[in-house]
Amino acid sequence: MITVHGFSPSGNCHKIRLLLEQMGKPYRWIETDSSAGATRTPGYLAKNPNGKVPIIELEDGRVLAESNAILYWLADGTEFLPVDAWQRAQAMSWMFFEQYSHEPYVAVARFICGWTPMDSPRRASLPQLRAKSHDALSVMERHLSRARWFTGERYGIADIALFAYTDVAGDGGIALNAYPAIRDWLARVRATPLFVPLPEPDPTARALITASA
Amino acid sequence: MITVHGFSPSGNCHKIRLLLEQMGKPYRWIETDSSAGATRTPGYLAKNPNGKVPIIELEDGRVLAESNAILYWLADGTEFLPVDAWQRAQAMSWMFFEQYSHEPYVAVARFICGWTPMDSPRRASLPQLRAKSHDALSVMERHLSRARWFTGERYGIADIALFAYTDVAGDGGIALNAYPAIRDWLARVRATPLFVPLPEPDPTARALITASA
Repeated sequence: MITVHGFSPSGNCHKIRLLLEQMGKPYRWIETDSSAGATRTPGYLAKNPNGKVPIIELEDGRVLAESNAILYWLADGTEFLPVDAWQRAQAMSWMFFEQYSHEPYVAVARFICGWTPMDSPRRASLPQLRAKSHDALSVMERHLSRARWFTGERYGIADIALFAYTDVAGDGGIALNAYPAIRDWLARVRATPLFVPLPEPDPTARALITASA
Repeated sequence: MITVHGFSPSGNCHKIRLLLEQMGKPYRWIETDSSAGATRTPGYLAKNPNGKVPIIELEDGRVLAESNAILYWLADGTEFLPVDAWQRAQAMSWMFFEQYSHEPYVAVARFICGWTPMDSPRRASLPQLRAKSHDALSVMERHLSRARWFTGERYGIADIALFAYTDVAGDGGIALNAYPAIRDWLARVRATPLFVPLPEPDPTARALITASA
């Protein structure tokens, strides 16, 4: 059985849980609180020298890091990744877009709002992070005005990758009002079989998110 | 024939040229100076709404964005990407590492040193960018102390992706003295058949790089 080392409130980690649940594939989840230093212990760094969650660990001890590479490996040969080479490449393109042009803004704005103190100097970067988030959302909106999914002709791993933080963009003070096609797509993703939502932030994080609005 | 829209001094763009040269695949290169706004014209944004280089364009007008997705598409079915699913996933993992934990520091430090004025406020971020660059280089060094390549058992697209900016890290004031395994790997990459180096920065950029040292 696959073991996932993940932090439940993290969208990057939730990607893996969502795909495994939708594939009906059994897995073991080891809660690894990256906000409390659990990815910086010698034991964890021996598994992933880059000190990030999520990782998956096979029964023979082999480890794979990077959320979107894990999605790719798990989905290969399933309905969640197209067979057609061009469609696969487009799905990969959206997954690189997610990690380079979307997550560093949308996810980081959310993290700062919910998981740093109200007087954190990092909060000064929120206006810029939100502006860059809207740039990424505009690119997504444009795609979704002409297509239903990001993974070729059907729902798959590029949708899972982009859904993770887009669905909770509001936690970072990023409103989705201006993006009707994104809101429709989020609803379509939530309606896919065996969908599981990201867990609610704990009360401390929720209070900080509310205070940051 | 494939058309590449790229900016020659960009490592992300050079990845595509290097792979195409090593594959012996003919291509047309359209120089697209992203530092002078060429990726923000209506014509370019119609091809890539995210406004970045490189992209490739097929003869029928189809477009693929994101350097590492382009490498993946070009290399599929060739010696530059393993057939084995686990090795492929590891290669993808290194390519996501490159775009998330390496390029935003190593490439951005180089860009600031060579392509922004000496009094740019962005230069205040250089110490942090360099520290994060060394974190990424340490992860690479650790891997290379036990393996010759990043793309499974032989040279391939994950090596091309990581080589691009590592080889010119010095331009951003990031010394490689402490990384003997990386320096050996860089030499191995440079010795691969049909290798082409990144072009020298123009004299203005080179002068800024020298002044930033």
